[in-house]
Amino acid sequence: MKEISNLMNYRDSVKVVDATLRDGGLVNDFFFDDRFVHDLYLANIKAGVDYMEFGYKADKEMFDREKFGKWKFCDEEDLRAVVGENDTDLKIAVMADVGRCNYKQDILNRDESVIDLIRVATYLNQIPTAVDMIEDAKRKGYEVSCNIMAISTAQEGDLRAALEILGQSPVDVIYIVDSFGAMYPEQLQRLAALYVEYAEKYGKRIGIHAHNNQQLAFANTIEAVGDGVDWLDATYSSMGRGAGNCAMELLLGFLKNPKYNVFPVIKFIDQHMNKLREQGVVWGYDLQYLMTGLLNQHPRTAIAFTKDGRKDYAEFYKEIVTMD
Amino acid sequence: MKEISNLMNYRDSVKVVDATLRDGGLVNDFFFDDRFVHDLYLANIKAGVDYMEFGYKADKEMFDREKFGKWKFCDEEDLRAVVGENDTDLKIAVMADVGRCNYKQDILNRDESVIDLIRVATYLNQIPTAVDMIEDAKRKGYEVSCNIMAISTAQEGDLRAALEILGQSPVDVIYIVDSFGAMYPEQLQRLAALYVEYAEKYGKRIGIHAHNNQQLAFANTIEAVGDGVDWLDATYSSMGRGAGNCAMELLLGFLKNPKYNVFPVIKFIDQHMNKLREQGVVWGYDLQYLMTGLLNQHPRTAIAFTKDGRKDYAEFYKEIVTMD
Repeated sequence: MKEISNLMNYRDSVKVVDATLRDGGLVNDFFFDDRFVHDLYLANIKAGVDYMEFGYKADKEMFDREKFGKWKFCDEEDLRAVVGENDTDLKIAVMADVGRCNYKQDILNRDESVIDLIRVATYLNQIPTAVDMIEDAKRKGYEVSCNIMAISTAQEGDLRAALEILGQSPVDVIYIVDSFGAMYPEQLQRLAALYVEYAEKYGKRIGIHAHNNQQLAFANTIEAVGDGVDWLDATYSSMGRGAGNCAMELLLGFLKNPKYNVFPVIKFIDQHMNKLREQGVVWGYDLQYLMTGLLNQHPRTAIAFTKDGRKDYAEFYKEIVTMD
Repeated sequence: MKEISNLMNYRDSVKVVDATLRDGGLVNDFFFDDRFVHDLYLANIKAGVDYMEFGYKADKEMFDREKFGKWKFCDEEDLRAVVGENDTDLKIAVMADVGRCNYKQDILNRDESVIDLIRVATYLNQIPTAVDMIEDAKRKGYEVSCNIMAISTAQEGDLRAALEILGQSPVDVIYIVDSFGAMYPEQLQRLAALYVEYAEKYGKRIGIHAHNNQQLAFANTIEAVGDGVDWLDATYSSMGRGAGNCAMELLLGFLKNPKYNVFPVIKFIDQHMNKLREQGVVWGYDLQYLMTGLLNQHPRTAIAFTKDGRKDYAEFYKEIVTMD
């Protein structure tokens, strides 16, 4: 039975991070209209969400400004146009990908920025660069998390080495990221135990970012809460790459801290998310994502299947199984 | 950590029950075309499914034959038109609701029927009638399960009394039924421990029938497997009342017994389930079902919301919260 097993109590250390614009932006190339972003900001404040991730700090030399909406880059003036000085309890986060962010230049000193949290996203083999980014962001005055992606394909030995390095870095939060939506709650439990071991040794917090390929994003997230994981990513209507993420409406319905309130989330979905779907933006659980999750593969083939408007699931299954 | 915790092994005692026609029939009043039913039967055989539930044995005095498809009644000749003598490894099940089934008359002796398993569905306060039905079916020669519905609103004392009575009855399998989709895996774990206590005392098996209101039907089902629950209900594409059930495609992807094969399930979904949706048959996770699940309410208000084609989630939430 879990620490929070009476399901009536809550842990103050739990933080909810809204990743709708960032992971959802991968679905529509970050072309959210201003009203959507502004209303999402207000909804998060009312819902008691702790952090709102606005998007990426992407390298403008690598990515064409014309091809993406502004939340791919999260320029300071674009953030301020929404949040002003952000005189609220909601903190502002952005993601910086290893190898895709000109962080020394594009991440300002914190006293010049409304951003509170820099989320460094890395694969296991890029940890040394991730540490350089973490140190840079820490020096500039930010809270910093490190999101180790695609963890379902990692070897435990490599993961231990990475957690040891990150433990000794100034990072505040280390994330379990099930990029492929391949993990079962039981596996999550074991992985959380491993992360928590290093977190306790080095005084870090642990986070979880789940994908919904097997309809387990919410289940894995609440499993993680019971295992001592504190930072929980979620998105409105599960909006996110491929099968999407843990749904904010499910998560806030579950969490018992009175500061959280699910109604503003429902209201936002009512006003904005169906409209988005009607405009042809497609995400969420479907058979092609189940298949890549089951096979522990990157969802890129399933995303292409979706983009092509294909529905021949059986043919697709044969394709990816024989590719394996 | 669970008994099957290495996720590599399997338990021979696990049985998979396809409830697509029965729970799915609640969505389309059992009007499945013959090709659908026949192909589903073949898919189940190929997929290694253990039991296929064809529908209800509903009382023809209570229910108008004109208003429902034939699987509401599961007449012997209709079953035989699909399965012949059913000379296969797939066993045939039907459901008999307490108070809605003329069981003494409508359930034949097993030697006159292709049915193998009678599933008696009951609320907690109807257990004495359920026991009469169980004894009747046992006398006639069937395997019998008892599905105790709406368990998320039960008092533990009442449940213990019911399990004691059922333990002493000749029933083979006792089901945990989360009719409202209100339970979290952790609660399921505790409930499973209680059922297993009586199962061990009286030599019964335990089953799980989950609903997907909070996207936890699959998660709760695999939680249950790890807790010693053997009989697992699932439906193709989660088809079932309201938010639907545990998806067969997820469950067979998870189970490791080599007799199970997910590909025939994918093929059937490819050929039949999208067509059904295009015909306007609506089921599956949506915000209105999340809300009734969260509030531990019967989904009837959410089903009405869906039938009316409403999308005003925020208004609906206000309605059911103030009704509470």
